Amino acid sequence: MAMKIQRYKHDAEVSYTLGATLTFELIKCASGRITRVFVSPEARDEGGIHELIEKCRQLRIPIIESEKAFNILSPKGNCFVIAEFRKEAGTIRQGNHLVFVNPSDAGNLGTILRTATGFGLTDIAIIRPAVDFYDPRVIRATMGAAFHVNVEYFDSIETYRERFPDNRLYAFMLQASRPLPEVVQSKEEPFSLVFGNEATGLPDIYAELCSAVIIKHSRDIDSLNLPMAAGIAMYEFTKEQWNRE
Amino acid sequence: MAMKIQRYKHDAEVSYTLGATLTFELIKCASGRITRVFVSPEARDEGGIHELIEKCRQLRIPIIESEKAFNILSPKGNCFVIAEFRKEAGTIRQGNHLVFVNPSDAGNLGTILRTATGFGLTDIAIIRPAVDFYDPRVIRATMGAAFHVNVEYFDSIETYRERFPDNRLYAFMLQASRPLPEVVQSKEEPFSLVFGNEATGLPDIYAELCSAVIIKHSRDIDSLNLPMAAGIAMYEFTKEQWNRE
Repeated sequence: MAMKIQRYKHDAEVSYTLGATLTFELIKCASGRITRVFVSPEARDEGGIHELIEKCRQLRIPIIESEKAFNILSPKGNCFVIAEFRKEAGTIRQGNHLVFVNPSDAGNLGTILRTATGFGLTDIAIIRPAVDFYDPRVIRATMGAAFHVNVEYFDSIETYRERFPDNRLYAFMLQASRPLPEVVQSKEEPFSLVFGNEATGLPDIYAELCSAVIIKHSRDIDSLNLPMAAGIAMYEFTKEQWNRE
Repeated sequence: MAMKIQRYKHDAEVSYTLGATLTFELIKCASGRITRVFVSPEARDEGGIHELIEKCRQLRIPIIESEKAFNILSPKGNCFVIAEFRKEAGTIRQGNHLVFVNPSDAGNLGTILRTATGFGLTDIAIIRPAVDFYDPRVIRATMGAAFHVNVEYFDSIETYRERFPDNRLYAFMLQASRPLPEVVQSKEEPFSLVFGNEATGLPDIYAELCSAVIIKHSRDIDSLNLPMAAGIAMYEFTKEQWNRE
């Protein structure tokens, strides 16, 4: 009984890794969630596809050699392996968090999750409406980091705060007056670093809900882009930990 | 005598701003370099196109209403104004620099230049072979910052060092042992922050030519992406200046 192959949909039960590197990372981190692996008849051994197929065989993951899956899931080509895997609703743990309010861009979210994995901030709350973490474009932009993070969606910042009343919230906004290097010196844990939408930032109300923080820069740009602001904030809030030894 | 409209080429004398926001920034920073402005017959007043046309008239910049330019220069559409402008070979000044060795991605270079403008590091050396700064995809990804930076190409790091023998070079590499927060505490000016290619990083020889620096992160990612590493480095090396007041 072959399941149909469909273009990714937000309400589907499965998503896809487009490419060999991503698929390797999925096998390493969560092979139990893989339902099947598509291999293009045009695949050569670039990116170690034979090794990948061998691993799938060992793990008894079904391998399907078919061009059709690629036409549907990766019409622009340039991809010779795709794993189909079960989506799981994430649950974030107590501790330090990142909170993204209404992020809208798939590539940006992917870049952010890669950086977050790099700095060990792997519990990530997303406030709806927002881009779908399981969109294959997000998964691809994480370059594998998607399988190292817990991402949980919330309907509002209030719902998030009720679950984590002890977290100290730091909101990154251009309207803030306290600069990042100063705030970091007296930071409290567990912390939540809160960022707004790419185009509109955080609503003014966040300056009351949270400690508002600014990353100062010249007036020749409107703002840093979202992944950059988030990356700089993550670096500052975690650098002690990474440079302790 | 109408000049032909051609797809952008590396050896052309002109480049293009795809979009109204970019074109506004070009008018503000370097209107004298604009040779003509194309306006799509489909343009409505979104993005203040009437205001832009009015400015061009005041500045006696030729305005051409034509669909053809858009089919050639922006075939994917979603753009209603394009300015054609003269390219200028940049010359960087004495002072702090960024140095990019063989950067290859247009979007990355654009993001980097935007961040560099934000942190006031506007003199940028690029070591060939490298992506073309005047590629309209780079210009677009800077979101206007392209017109605030001086970008100069060099054939080798040696040529660059001969011109700027007093600059202290800091090379960002995964093989380094000294972490960024430590290096910054004893930084010397004028400094040059040196970054390698997206995929391959800096050759080992840079550890001898420069002070090698690492931005420490978890082993769950191979590396930070290039714009992120560069942005974090720029933030650390300039934050005193931005937070002085």
